[in-house]
Amino acid sequence: MNKKEFLLRQIAKTNKKNYENYVVTRIIHKLDDPTVKFITQQFVTRPGKRRALTDLYVPQIAFHVEIDEGYHKTIGEADTVREADIIDATGHTIVRVDATLQLEELNAHIDKVINQIRELIDTKREHQQFEDWNPEREHNPAAHIERGYMDADGDVAFYRQADACNCFGHSYRGLQRALVRHAVETELTIWFPKLYDNADWHNVISDDEETIYERRQRDNDEFILSYLKRTDRFNRLVFARVRGPLGDVMYRFKGLYEVDVETSQQTSTITYHRKAKRVRTYTPIERAARLP
Amino acid sequence: MNKKEFLLRQIAKTNKKNYENYVVTRIIHKLDDPTVKFITQQFVTRPGKRRALTDLYVPQIAFHVEIDEGYHKTIGEADTVREADIIDATGHTIVRVDATLQLEELNAHIDKVINQIRELIDTKREHQQFEDWNPEREHNPAAHIERGYMDADGDVAFYRQADACNCFGHSYRGLQRALVRHAVETELTIWFPKLYDNADWHNVISDDEETIYERRQRDNDEFILSYLKRTDRFNRLVFARVRGPLGDVMYRFKGLYEVDVETSQQTSTITYHRKAKRVRTYTPIERAARLP
Repeated sequence: MNKKEFLLRQIAKTNKKNYENYVVTRIIHKLDDPTVKFITQQFVTRPGKRRALTDLYVPQIAFHVEIDEGYHKTIGEADTVREADIIDATGHTIVRVDATLQLEELNAHIDKVINQIRELIDTKREHQQFEDWNPEREHNPAAHIERGYMDADGDVAFYRQADACNCFGHSYRGLQRALVRHAVETELTIWFPKLYDNADWHNVISDDEETIYERRQRDNDEFILSYLKRTDRFNRLVFARVRGPLGDVMYRFKGLYEVDVETSQQTSTITYHRKAKRVRTYTPIERAARLP
Repeated sequence: MNKKEFLLRQIAKTNKKNYENYVVTRIIHKLDDPTVKFITQQFVTRPGKRRALTDLYVPQIAFHVEIDEGYHKTIGEADTVREADIIDATGHTIVRVDATLQLEELNAHIDKVINQIRELIDTKREHQQFEDWNPEREHNPAAHIERGYMDADGDVAFYRQADACNCFGHSYRGLQRALVRHAVETELTIWFPKLYDNADWHNVISDDEETIYERRQRDNDEFILSYLKRTDRFNRLVFARVRGPLGDVMYRFKGLYEVDVETSQQTSTITYHRKAKRVRTYTPIERAARLP
Protein backbone atom coordinates (compact mmCIF):
# COMPACT_ATOMS: atom_id res chain seq x y z
CA MET A 1 0.00 0.00 0.00
CA ASN A 2 1.75 3.15 -1.16
CA LYS A 3 0.95 6.70 -0.07
CA LYS A 4 -1.15 7.51 -3.10
CA GLU A 5 -3.34 4.42 -2.78
CA PHE A 6 -3.74 4.97 0.95
CA LEU A 7 -4.75 8.63 0.52
CA LEU A 8 -7.11 7.81 -2.36
CA ARG A 9 -8.82 5.17 -0.27
CA GLN A 10 -9.18 7.53 2.67
CA ILE A 11 -10.68 10.18 0.38
CA ALA A 12 -12.90 7.51 -1.24
CA LYS A 13 -14.63 7.04 2.13
CA THR A 14 -16.00 10.57 1.68
CA ASN A 15 -17.33 9.68 -1.78
CA LYS A 16 -21.01 10.12 -1.26
CA LYS A 17 -20.61 12.98 1.18
CA ASN A 18 -19.99 16.04 -0.95
CA TYR A 19 -19.25 18.42 1.90
CA GLU A 20 -16.86 16.03 3.57
CA ASN A 21 -15.11 15.32 0.29
CA TYR A 22 -14.67 19.05 -0.34
CA VAL A 23 -13.29 19.88 3.11
CA VAL A 24 -11.08 16.79 3.38
CA THR A 25 -9.53 17.23 -0.09
CA ARG A 26 -8.94 20.93 0.51
CA ILE A 27 -7.04 20.17 3.72
CA ILE A 28 -4.98 17.40 2.11
CA HIS A 29 -4.17 19.33 -1.08
CA LYS A 30 -3.46 22.69 0.52
CA LEU A 31 -1.41 21.27 3.39
CA ASP A 32 0.39 19.50 0.54
CA ASP A 33 2.81 17.59 2.73
CA PRO A 34 3.38 13.93 1.82
CA THR A 35 5.02 13.31 5.21
CA VAL A 36 1.61 13.69 6.85
CA LYS A 37 -0.81 10.78 7.25
CA PHE A 38 -4.58 11.33 7.06
CA ILE A 39 -7.34 8.99 8.14
CA THR A 40 -10.98 9.68 7.37
CA GLN A 41 -13.89 8.54 9.52
CA GLN A 42 -11.98 7.65 12.67
CA PHE A 43 -14.00 6.40 15.62
CA VAL A 44 -13.04 8.12 18.85
CA THR A 45 -14.07 8.23 22.47
CA ARG A 46 -13.81 11.44 24.42
CA PRO A 47 -14.12 12.10 28.14
CA GLY A 48 -17.80 12.39 29.04
CA LYS A 49 -18.98 11.79 25.49
CA ARG A 50 -20.22 8.88 23.45
CA ARG A 51 -18.30 7.26 20.69
CA ALA A 52 -18.16 9.52 17.68
CA LEU A 53 -16.80 9.58 14.14
CA THR A 54 -14.38 12.34 13.32
CA ASP A 55 -14.26 13.12 9.62
CA LEU A 56 -10.51 13.63 9.36
CA TYR A 57 -7.78 12.45 11.74
CA VAL A 58 -4.10 13.38 11.60
CA PRO A 59 -2.55 10.78 13.92
CA GLN A 60 0.96 12.27 14.01
CA ILE A 61 -0.35 15.36 15.80
CA ALA A 62 -3.47 13.81 17.40
CA PHE A 63 -5.65 16.27 15.47
CA HIS A 64 -9.26 15.75 14.35
CA VAL A 65 -11.61 17.67 12.10
CA GLU A 66 -15.36 17.34 12.41
CA ILE A 67 -17.36 18.63 9.48
CA ASP A 68 -20.67 20.13 10.44
CA GLU A 69 -23.17 19.79 7.60
CA GLY A 70 -26.04 21.32 9.51
CA TYR A 71 -27.77 18.07 10.47
CA HIS A 72 -27.14 15.47 13.10
CA LYS A 73 -24.96 12.60 11.98
CA THR A 74 -25.91 9.13 13.09
CA ILE A 75 -23.14 6.71 13.82
CA GLY A 76 -24.58 3.74 11.97
CA GLU A 77 -25.41 0.26 13.09
CA ALA A 78 -23.95 -1.21 16.26
CA ASP A 79 -22.38 -3.89 14.06
CA THR A 80 -20.30 -1.33 12.21
CA VAL A 81 -19.06 0.24 15.41
CA ARG A 82 -18.39 -3.08 17.11
CA GLU A 83 -15.17 -3.89 15.28
CA ALA A 84 -14.20 -0.27 14.65
CA ASP A 85 -10.76 1.05 15.43
CA ILE A 86 -11.66 3.27 18.36
CA ILE A 87 -9.12 5.82 19.50
CA ASP A 88 -9.15 7.38 22.95
CA ALA A 89 -9.10 11.05 21.96
CA THR A 90 -8.26 12.35 25.43
CA GLY A 91 -5.77 15.16 24.96
CA HIS A 92 -6.38 15.28 21.22
CA THR A 93 -7.27 18.49 19.38
CA ILE A 94 -10.71 18.43 17.79
CA VAL A 95 -11.87 21.31 15.59
CA ARG A 96 -15.16 21.78 13.77
CA VAL A 97 -15.67 23.12 10.27
CA ASP A 98 -19.05 24.64 9.43
CA ALA A 99 -19.72 23.39 5.88
CA THR A 100 -22.94 25.40 5.65
CA LEU A 101 -20.93 28.61 5.17
CA GLN A 102 -20.76 30.14 1.71
CA LEU A 103 -17.78 29.34 -0.53
CA GLU A 104 -15.39 32.16 0.37
CA GLU A 105 -16.09 31.96 4.12
CA LEU A 106 -15.87 28.18 4.08
CA ASN A 107 -12.53 28.28 2.27
CA ALA A 108 -11.18 30.85 4.73
CA HIS A 109 -12.35 28.71 7.64
CA ILE A 110 -10.70 25.56 6.24
CA ASP A 111 -7.49 27.51 5.57
CA LYS A 112 -7.34 28.49 9.26
CA VAL A 113 -7.56 24.81 10.18
CA ILE A 114 -4.78 24.04 7.70
CA ASN A 115 -2.57 26.68 9.36
CA GLN A 116 -3.32 25.18 12.75
CA ILE A 117 -2.26 21.74 11.49
CA ARG A 118 0.91 23.21 9.97
CA GLU A 119 1.84 24.94 13.22
CA LEU A 120 1.36 21.78 15.26
CA ILE A 121 3.57 19.85 12.83
CA ASP A 122 6.25 22.56 12.87
CA THR A 123 6.31 22.63 16.66
CA LYS A 124 6.66 18.85 16.82
CA ARG A 125 9.39 18.98 14.16
CA GLU A 126 11.32 21.60 16.12
CA HIS A 127 11.28 19.28 19.13
CA GLN A 128 12.25 16.24 17.03
CA GLN A 129 8.91 14.65 17.96
CA PHE A 130 7.49 14.42 14.44
CA GLU A 131 7.95 11.18 12.58
CA ASP A 132 7.41 11.43 8.83
CA TRP A 133 4.66 9.21 7.50
CA ASN A 134 6.23 6.10 6.04
CA PRO A 135 3.68 3.43 5.06
CA GLU A 136 6.40 0.87 4.37
CA ARG A 137 7.82 1.20 7.87
CA GLU A 138 4.94 2.10 10.16
CA HIS A 139 3.56 -1.44 10.38
CA ASN A 140 6.98 -3.04 10.25
CA PRO A 141 8.45 -4.41 13.52
CA ALA A 142 11.93 -3.13 12.54
CA ALA A 143 10.81 0.50 12.93
CA HIS A 144 9.39 -0.16 16.40
CA ILE A 145 12.45 -2.10 17.53
CA GLU A 146 14.72 0.69 16.30
CA ARG A 147 12.69 3.27 18.22
CA GLY A 148 13.20 1.14 21.33
CA TYR A 149 9.64 1.42 22.60
CA MET A 150 5.97 1.19 21.65
CA ASP A 151 3.43 3.70 22.95
CA ALA A 152 -0.36 3.37 23.04
CA ASP A 153 -0.59 7.08 22.21
CA GLY A 154 1.66 6.58 19.19
CA ASP A 155 -0.80 5.17 16.63
CA VAL A 156 0.68 1.66 16.68
CA ALA A 157 -1.19 -1.04 14.78
CA PHE A 158 -0.16 -4.14 12.83
CA TYR A 159 -1.70 -6.07 9.97
CA ARG A 160 -0.31 -9.38 11.28
CA GLN A 161 -0.08 -10.83 14.78
CA ALA A 162 3.42 -12.06 13.95
CA ASP A 163 4.57 -8.47 13.39
CA ALA A 164 3.34 -7.43 16.84
CA CYS A 165 5.11 -10.41 18.45
CA ASN A 166 8.32 -9.73 16.53
CA CYS A 167 8.64 -6.38 18.31
CA PHE A 168 9.28 -8.39 21.49
CA GLY A 169 12.14 -10.69 20.49
CA HIS A 170 10.21 -13.20 18.37
CA SER A 171 10.93 -14.15 14.75
CA TYR A 172 7.56 -15.51 13.66
CA ARG A 173 6.62 -15.78 10.02
CA GLY A 174 2.96 -16.39 10.64
CA LEU A 175 0.78 -16.91 13.68
CA GLN A 176 -2.91 -17.19 14.65
CA ARG A 177 -3.19 -17.34 18.43
CA ALA A 178 -4.88 -15.21 21.06
CA LEU A 179 -2.01 -15.52 23.55
CA VAL A 180 1.76 -15.49 22.95
CA ARG A 181 4.49 -15.44 25.57
CA HIS A 182 6.83 -12.39 25.45
CA ALA A 183 10.16 -13.71 24.13
CA VAL A 184 12.35 -11.81 26.59
CA GLU A 185 10.25 -10.54 29.51
CA THR A 186 8.68 -13.96 29.97
CA GLU A 187 6.38 -12.77 32.75
CA LEU A 188 4.46 -10.88 30.03
CA THR A 189 1.86 -12.30 27.63
CA ILE A 190 0.98 -10.78 24.28
CA TRP A 191 -2.80 -10.82 23.86
CA PHE A 192 -4.94 -10.21 20.73
CA PRO A 193 -8.49 -9.86 22.08
CA LYS A 194 -11.69 -8.76 20.43
CA LEU A 195 -12.67 -5.98 22.81
CA TYR A 196 -16.36 -6.20 21.93
CA ASP A 197 -19.18 -8.68 22.27
CA ASN A 198 -18.65 -11.74 20.11
CA ALA A 199 -19.77 -15.36 19.92
CA ASP A 200 -17.34 -16.55 22.61
CA TRP A 201 -16.57 -13.52 24.73
CA HIS A 202 -18.27 -10.62 26.35
CA ASN A 203 -15.36 -8.18 26.42
CA VAL A 204 -15.42 -4.45 27.06
CA ILE A 205 -12.79 -1.73 27.20
CA SER A 206 -13.64 1.41 29.15
CA ASP A 207 -13.94 4.69 27.25
CA ASP A 208 -10.66 5.96 28.74
CA GLU A 209 -9.07 2.59 27.84
CA GLU A 210 -7.72 2.22 31.38
CA THR A 211 -9.80 -0.89 32.17
CA ILE A 212 -10.64 -4.06 30.26
CA TYR A 213 -13.40 -6.46 31.31
CA GLU A 214 -13.38 -10.08 30.09
CA ARG A 215 -16.18 -12.65 30.49
CA ARG A 216 -16.81 -15.87 28.65
CA GLN A 217 -20.26 -16.15 27.07
CA ARG A 218 -20.65 -19.76 28.29
CA ASP A 219 -19.43 -21.37 31.53
CA ASN A 220 -17.99 -18.07 32.73
CA ASP A 221 -17.59 -19.15 36.39
CA GLU A 222 -15.48 -22.13 35.32
CA PHE A 223 -13.38 -19.85 33.12
CA ILE A 224 -12.78 -17.36 35.97
CA LEU A 225 -11.74 -20.11 38.38
CA SER A 226 -9.19 -21.70 36.07
CA TYR A 227 -7.95 -18.32 34.77
CA LEU A 228 -7.10 -16.99 38.23
CA LYS A 229 -4.73 -19.92 38.79
CA ARG A 230 -2.60 -18.84 35.81
CA THR A 231 -0.67 -16.03 37.53
CA ASP A 232 1.90 -16.23 34.70
CA ARG A 233 -0.72 -14.72 32.39
CA PHE A 234 -1.75 -11.77 34.54
CA ASN A 235 0.40 -9.18 32.73
CA ARG A 236 -0.68 -8.56 29.17
CA LEU A 237 0.49 -6.49 26.25
CA VAL A 238 -2.84 -5.82 24.59
CA PHE A 239 -3.30 -5.61 20.81
CA ALA A 240 -7.01 -5.14 20.19
CA ARG A 241 -8.45 -6.63 17.02
CA VAL A 242 -9.98 -3.75 15.00
CA ARG A 243 -10.91 -2.70 11.48
CA GLY A 244 -8.10 -0.40 10.32
CA PRO A 245 -8.46 2.68 8.11
CA LEU A 246 -8.58 0.54 4.95
CA GLY A 247 -11.17 -1.85 6.35
CA ASP A 248 -8.67 -4.65 6.98
CA VAL A 249 -8.30 -6.42 10.31
CA MET A 250 -5.53 -4.82 12.36
CA TYR A 251 -4.17 -5.22 15.87
CA ARG A 252 -3.95 -1.91 17.71
CA PHE A 253 -1.61 -1.55 20.69
CA LYS A 254 -3.48 -0.41 23.82
CA GLY A 255 -0.71 -0.81 26.47
CA LEU A 256 0.36 -3.15 29.26
CA TYR A 257 -2.50 -4.33 31.48
CA GLU A 258 -2.54 -6.37 34.71
CA VAL A 259 -5.31 -8.46 36.23
CA ASP A 260 -6.96 -7.06 39.36
CA VAL A 261 -7.52 -10.37 41.15
CA GLU A 262 -9.83 -9.16 43.90
CA THR A 263 -12.21 -7.30 41.60
CA SER A 264 -12.14 -10.19 39.14
CA GLN A 265 -13.23 -12.63 41.85
CA GLN A 266 -15.91 -10.36 43.31
CA THR A 267 -17.48 -9.49 39.94
CA SER A 268 -16.92 -12.81 38.14
CA THR A 269 -15.32 -10.70 35.42
CA ILE A 270 -11.61 -10.71 34.68
CA THR A 271 -10.72 -7.06 35.22
CA TYR A 272 -7.49 -5.58 33.91
CA HIS A 273 -6.03 -2.17 34.71
CA ARG A 274 -3.53 -0.44 32.52
CA LYS A 275 -0.04 -0.30 34.07
CA ALA A 276 1.77 1.42 31.23
CA LYS A 277 1.10 2.98 27.84
CA ARG A 278 4.73 2.69 26.80
CA VAL A 279 6.72 -0.57 26.75
CA ARG A 280 10.18 -1.62 25.60
CA THR A 281 10.72 -3.38 22.30
CA TYR A 282 13.36 -6.08 21.68
CA THR A 283 15.37 -7.52 18.82
CA PRO A 284 15.59 -11.31 18.32
CA ILE A 285 19.26 -10.96 19.31
CA GLU A 286 18.28 -9.67 22.75
CA ARG A 287 16.13 -12.74 23.09
CA ALA A 288 19.00 -15.04 22.14
CA ALA A 289 21.21 -13.35 24.75
CA ARG A 290 18.64 -14.22 27.43
CA LEU A 291 18.36 -17.90 26.48
CA PRO A 292 20.22 -20.23 28.82
CA MET B 1 -27.39 27.72 -7.51
CA ASN B 2 -24.53 29.35 -5.63
CA LYS B 3 -20.82 28.77 -6.27
CA LYS B 4 -20.39 26.24 -3.48
CA GLU B 5 -23.31 24.08 -4.59
CA PHE B 6 -22.20 24.27 -8.21
CA LEU B 7 -18.61 23.26 -7.38
CA LEU B 8 -19.74 20.48 -5.04
CA ARG B 9 -22.00 19.06 -7.74
CA GLN B 10 -19.21 19.18 -10.29
CA ILE B 11 -16.87 17.40 -7.87
CA ALA B 12 -19.64 14.92 -7.02
CA LYS B 13 -19.55 13.70 -10.63
CA THR B 14 -16.08 12.34 -9.85
CA ASN B 15 -17.42 10.48 -6.80
CA LYS B 16 -16.75 6.94 -7.79
CA LYS B 17 -13.57 7.74 -9.68
CA ASN B 18 -10.89 8.11 -7.05
CA TYR B 19 -8.14 9.30 -9.37
CA GLU B 20 -10.37 11.87 -11.01
CA ASN B 21 -11.62 13.09 -7.66
CA TYR B 22 -8.04 13.49 -6.42
CA VAL B 23 -6.78 15.39 -9.46
CA VAL B 24 -9.87 17.56 -9.86
CA THR B 25 -10.01 18.58 -6.19
CA ARG B 26 -6.28 19.32 -6.14
CA ILE B 27 -6.64 21.67 -9.10
CA ILE B 28 -9.70 23.42 -7.64
CA HIS B 29 -8.28 23.78 -4.12
CA LYS B 30 -4.76 24.77 -5.08
CA LEU B 31 -5.82 27.19 -7.80
CA ASP B 32 -8.04 28.52 -5.01
CA ASP B 33 -9.72 31.21 -7.09
CA PRO B 34 -13.49 31.58 -6.67
CA THR B 35 -13.67 33.70 -9.84
CA VAL B 36 -12.93 30.57 -11.90
CA LYS B 37 -15.65 28.18 -13.08
CA PHE B 38 -14.99 24.44 -13.35
CA ILE B 39 -17.05 21.84 -15.16
CA THR B 40 -16.33 18.13 -14.84
CA GLN B 41 -17.02 15.55 -17.56
CA GLN B 42 -17.51 17.89 -20.48
CA PHE B 43 -18.23 16.31 -23.85
CA VAL B 44 -16.08 17.76 -26.60
CA THR B 45 -15.40 17.28 -30.28
CA ARG B 46 -11.93 17.85 -31.65
CA PRO B 47 -10.69 18.12 -35.22
CA GLY B 48 -10.12 14.61 -36.56
CA LYS B 49 -11.20 12.90 -33.37
CA ARG B 50 -14.35 11.33 -32.02
CA ARG B 51 -16.43 12.79 -29.30
CA ALA B 52 -14.67 12.53 -25.97
CA LEU B 53 -15.19 13.36 -22.33
CA THR B 54 -12.68 15.69 -20.73
CA ASP B 55 -12.47 15.28 -16.97
CA LEU B 56 -12.16 18.96 -16.11
CA TYR B 57 -13.06 21.97 -18.21
CA VAL B 58 -12.32 25.62 -17.41
CA PRO B 59 -14.60 27.45 -19.87
CA GLN B 60 -13.25 30.96 -19.20
CA ILE B 61 -9.88 29.98 -20.67
CA ALA B 62 -11.05 27.11 -22.93
CA PHE B 63 -8.82 24.71 -21.00
CA HIS B 64 -9.37 20.97 -20.49
CA VAL B 65 -7.71 18.34 -18.33
CA GLU B 66 -7.84 14.66 -19.24
CA ILE B 67 -6.92 12.27 -16.47
CA ASP B 68 -5.17 9.17 -17.66
CA GLU B 69 -5.83 6.27 -15.31
CA GLY B 70 -3.89 3.75 -17.34
CA TYR B 71 -6.88 2.13 -19.02
CA HIS B 72 -9.11 3.11 -21.90
CA LYS B 73 -12.22 5.04 -20.90
CA THR B 74 -15.44 4.21 -22.66
CA ILE B 75 -17.81 7.01 -23.34
CA GLY B 76 -20.98 5.27 -22.20
CA GLU B 77 -24.24 4.54 -23.96
CA ALA B 78 -25.26 6.41 -27.07
CA ASP B 79 -28.29 7.60 -25.10
CA THR B 80 -26.11 9.42 -22.60
CA VAL B 81 -24.13 11.14 -25.32
CA ARG B 82 -27.18 12.01 -27.41
CA GLU B 83 -28.39 14.92 -25.30
CA ALA B 84 -24.95 15.85 -23.96
CA ASP B 85 -23.67 19.40 -24.03
CA ILE B 86 -21.00 18.98 -26.68
CA ILE B 87 -18.38 21.69 -27.03
CA ASP B 88 -16.32 22.20 -30.16
CA ALA B 89 -12.85 22.15 -28.64
CA THR B 90 -11.09 23.52 -31.71
CA GLY B 91 -8.47 25.96 -30.46
CA HIS B 92 -8.92 24.81 -26.85
CA THR B 93 -5.98 23.73 -24.70
CA ILE B 94 -6.14 20.08 -23.65
CA VAL B 95 -3.59 18.67 -21.22
CA ARG B 96 -3.26 15.14 -19.87
CA VAL B 97 -2.43 14.14 -16.31
CA ASP B 98 -0.93 10.71 -15.76
CA ALA B 99 -2.64 9.48 -12.59
CA THR B 100 -0.55 6.33 -12.52
CA LEU B 101 2.46 8.29 -11.27
CA GLN B 102 3.48 7.99 -7.63
CA LEU B 103 2.23 10.58 -5.14
CA GLU B 104 5.06 13.12 -5.26
CA GLU B 105 5.43 12.98 -9.05
CA LEU B 106 1.67 13.12 -9.54
CA ASN B 107 1.38 16.16 -7.26
CA ALA B 108 4.23 17.90 -9.09
CA HIS B 109 2.57 17.14 -12.42
CA ILE B 110 -0.80 18.52 -11.29
CA ASP B 111 0.90 21.62 -9.88
CA LYS B 112 2.40 22.33 -13.31
CA VAL B 113 -1.08 22.19 -14.80
CA ILE B 114 -2.31 24.56 -12.08
CA ASN B 115 0.45 27.03 -12.98
CA GLN B 116 -0.51 26.77 -16.63
CA ILE B 117 -4.14 27.58 -15.77
CA ARG B 118 -3.05 30.50 -13.60
CA GLU B 119 -0.86 31.94 -16.38
CA LEU B 120 -3.67 31.71 -18.92
CA ILE B 121 -6.02 33.50 -16.52
CA ASP B 122 -3.45 36.18 -15.75
CA THR B 123 -2.81 36.82 -19.44
CA LYS B 124 -6.54 37.13 -20.12
CA ARG B 125 -6.91 39.42 -17.11
CA GLU B 126 -4.11 41.67 -18.36
CA HIS B 127 -5.94 42.03 -21.66
CA GLN B 128 -9.30 42.63 -19.94
CA GLN B 129 -10.58 39.45 -21.55
CA PHE B 130 -11.29 37.51 -18.37
CA GLU B 131 -14.79 37.64 -16.96
CA ASP B 132 -15.09 36.57 -13.33
CA TRP B 133 -17.37 33.62 -12.77
CA ASN B 134 -20.72 34.91 -11.61
CA PRO B 135 -23.40 32.19 -11.42
CA GLU B 136 -26.14 34.74 -10.76
CA ARG B 137 -25.35 36.68 -13.93
CA GLU B 138 -24.00 34.17 -16.43
CA HIS B 139 -27.42 32.81 -17.43
CA ASN B 140 -29.15 36.13 -17.07
CA PRO B 141 -30.06 38.05 -20.25
CA ALA B 142 -29.06 41.35 -18.59
CA ALA B 143 -25.38 40.37 -18.58
CA HIS B 144 -25.46 39.46 -22.28
CA ILE B 145 -27.32 42.63 -23.23
CA GLU B 146 -24.84 44.73 -21.27
CA ARG B 147 -21.91 43.05 -23.04
CA GLY B 148 -23.56 43.98 -26.35
CA TYR B 149 -22.95 40.64 -28.06
CA MET B 150 -23.20 36.88 -27.70
CA ASP B 151 -20.43 34.57 -28.92
CA ALA B 152 -20.61 30.85 -29.61
CA ASP B 153 -17.05 30.56 -28.25
CA GLY B 154 -18.09 32.32 -25.05
CA ASP B 155 -19.78 29.49 -23.12
CA VAL B 156 -23.29 30.93 -23.52
CA ALA B 157 -26.18 28.74 -22.35
CA PHE B 158 -29.58 29.43 -20.78
CA TYR B 159 -31.87 27.47 -18.52
CA ARG B 160 -34.99 28.99 -20.12
CA GLN B 161 -35.88 29.70 -23.73
CA ALA B 162 -37.35 33.02 -22.60
CA ASP B 163 -33.92 34.11 -21.33
CA ALA B 164 -32.33 33.42 -24.72
CA CYS B 165 -35.09 35.39 -26.50
CA ASN B 166 -34.84 38.26 -24.05
CA CYS B 167 -31.27 38.91 -25.22
CA PHE B 168 -32.80 39.99 -28.54
CA GLY B 169 -35.31 42.62 -27.52
CA HIS B 170 -38.05 40.38 -26.13
CA SER B 171 -39.57 40.56 -22.64
CA TYR B 172 -40.96 37.04 -22.28
CA ARG B 173 -41.75 35.57 -18.88
CA GLY B 174 -42.12 32.01 -20.11
CA LEU B 175 -42.09 30.30 -23.48
CA GLN B 176 -42.10 26.80 -25.00
CA ARG B 177 -41.64 27.07 -28.75
CA ALA B 178 -39.08 25.82 -31.25
CA LEU B 179 -39.10 29.03 -33.32
CA VAL B 180 -39.31 32.67 -32.19
CA ARG B 181 -38.95 35.75 -34.34
CA HIS B 182 -36.06 38.08 -33.40
CA ALA B 183 -37.67 41.18 -31.84
CA VAL B 184 -35.47 43.73 -33.62
CA GLU B 185 -33.73 42.10 -36.59
CA THR B 186 -36.97 40.59 -37.79
CA GLU B 187 -35.27 38.74 -40.67
CA LEU B 188 -33.78 36.45 -38.00
CA THR B 189 -35.46 33.51 -36.24
CA ILE B 190 -34.44 32.16 -32.86
CA TRP B 191 -34.40 28.34 -32.99
CA PHE B 192 -34.19 25.79 -30.15
CA PRO B 193 -33.51 22.47 -31.94
CA LYS B 194 -32.56 19.08 -30.60
CA LEU B 195 -29.40 18.51 -32.64
CA TYR B 196 -29.62 14.73 -32.34
CA ASP B 197 -31.92 11.96 -33.48
CA ASN B 198 -35.30 12.13 -31.78
CA ALA B 199 -38.84 10.95 -32.33
CA ASP B 200 -39.71 13.74 -34.79
CA TRP B 201 -36.42 14.84 -36.25
CA HIS B 202 -33.24 13.43 -37.65
CA ASN B 203 -30.93 16.36 -36.90
CA VAL B 204 -27.13 16.44 -36.94
CA ILE B 205 -24.54 19.10 -36.26
CA SER B 206 -21.10 18.59 -37.80
CA ASP B 207 -18.14 18.07 -35.46
CA ASP B 208 -16.79 21.53 -36.24
CA GLU B 209 -20.30 22.92 -35.68
CA GLU B 210 -20.18 24.79 -39.01
CA THR B 211 -23.05 22.80 -40.56
CA ILE B 212 -26.46 21.64 -39.31
CA TYR B 213 -28.56 19.04 -41.12
CA GLU B 214 -32.32 18.81 -40.51
CA ARG B 215 -34.69 16.08 -41.72
CA ARG B 216 -38.13 15.15 -40.53
CA GLN B 217 -38.53 11.50 -39.51
CA ARG B 218 -41.89 11.24 -41.34
CA ASP B 219 -43.01 12.92 -44.59
CA ASN B 220 -39.63 14.56 -45.03
CA ASP B 221 -40.14 15.49 -48.69
CA GLU B 222 -43.32 17.35 -47.83
CA PHE B 223 -41.48 19.14 -45.03
CA ILE B 224 -38.61 20.19 -47.32
CA LEU B 225 -40.98 21.54 -49.94
CA SER B 226 -42.99 23.68 -47.57
CA TYR B 227 -39.91 24.75 -45.60
CA LEU B 228 -38.08 26.13 -48.63
CA LYS B 229 -40.99 28.50 -49.29
CA ARG B 230 -40.47 30.19 -45.91
CA THR B 231 -37.51 32.38 -46.86
CA ASP B 232 -38.25 34.51 -43.78
CA ARG B 233 -37.01 31.60 -41.65
CA PHE B 234 -33.72 30.97 -43.44
CA ASN B 235 -31.51 32.84 -40.95
CA ARG B 236 -31.43 31.27 -37.52
CA LEU B 237 -29.88 32.03 -34.18
CA VAL B 238 -29.35 28.48 -32.94
CA PHE B 239 -29.70 27.48 -29.27
CA ALA B 240 -29.20 23.72 -29.13
CA ARG B 241 -31.08 21.80 -26.45
CA VAL B 242 -28.48 20.04 -24.26
CA ARG B 243 -27.93 18.62 -20.78
CA GLY B 244 -25.97 21.26 -18.87
CA PRO B 245 -23.25 20.63 -16.28
CA LEU B 246 -25.83 20.02 -13.55
CA GLY B 247 -27.88 17.63 -15.67
CA ASP B 248 -30.64 20.16 -16.36
CA VAL B 249 -31.89 20.97 -19.83
CA MET B 250 -30.11 24.03 -21.20
CA TYR B 251 -30.05 25.89 -24.50
CA ARG B 252 -26.50 26.44 -25.76
CA PHE B 253 -25.78 29.19 -28.28
CA LYS B 254 -24.11 27.83 -31.43
CA GLY B 255 -24.18 30.94 -33.67
CA LEU B 256 -26.12 32.39 -36.62
CA TYR B 257 -26.83 29.87 -39.38
CA GLU B 258 -28.33 30.29 -42.87
CA VAL B 259 -30.08 27.74 -45.08
CA ASP B 260 -28.13 26.59 -48.16
CA VAL B 261 -31.10 26.26 -50.51
CA GLU B 262 -29.40 24.39 -53.33
CA THR B 263 -27.84 21.72 -51.15
CA SER B 264 -31.08 21.38 -49.20
CA GLN B 265 -33.01 20.67 -52.38
CA GLN B 266 -30.44 18.27 -53.82
CA THR B 267 -30.06 16.23 -50.62
CA SER B 268 -33.64 16.47 -49.32
CA THR B 269 -32.04 17.69 -46.09
CA ILE B 270 -32.29 21.23 -44.83
CA THR B 271 -28.66 22.25 -44.65
CA TYR B 272 -27.52 25.28 -42.68
CA HIS B 273 -24.08 26.89 -42.72
CA ARG B 274 -22.80 29.07 -39.92
CA LYS B 275 -22.54 32.74 -40.93
CA ALA B 276 -21.35 34.13 -37.61
CA LYS B 277 -20.31 32.99 -34.15
CA ARG B 278 -20.87 36.43 -32.67
CA VAL B 279 -24.18 38.32 -32.85
CA ARG B 280 -25.51 41.57 -31.40
CA THR B 281 -27.77 41.60 -28.36
CA TYR B 282 -30.62 44.08 -27.80
CA THR B 283 -32.55 45.62 -24.93
CA PRO B 284 -36.37 45.71 -24.98
CA ILE B 285 -35.99 49.49 -25.35
CA GLU B 286 -34.18 49.05 -28.66
CA ARG B 287 -37.08 46.94 -29.78
CA ALA B 288 -39.60 49.61 -28.77
CA ALA B 289 -37.61 52.19 -30.76
CA ARG B 290 -37.99 50.04 -33.88
CA LEU B 291 -41.74 49.56 -33.58
CA PRO B 292 -43.74 51.62 -36.02
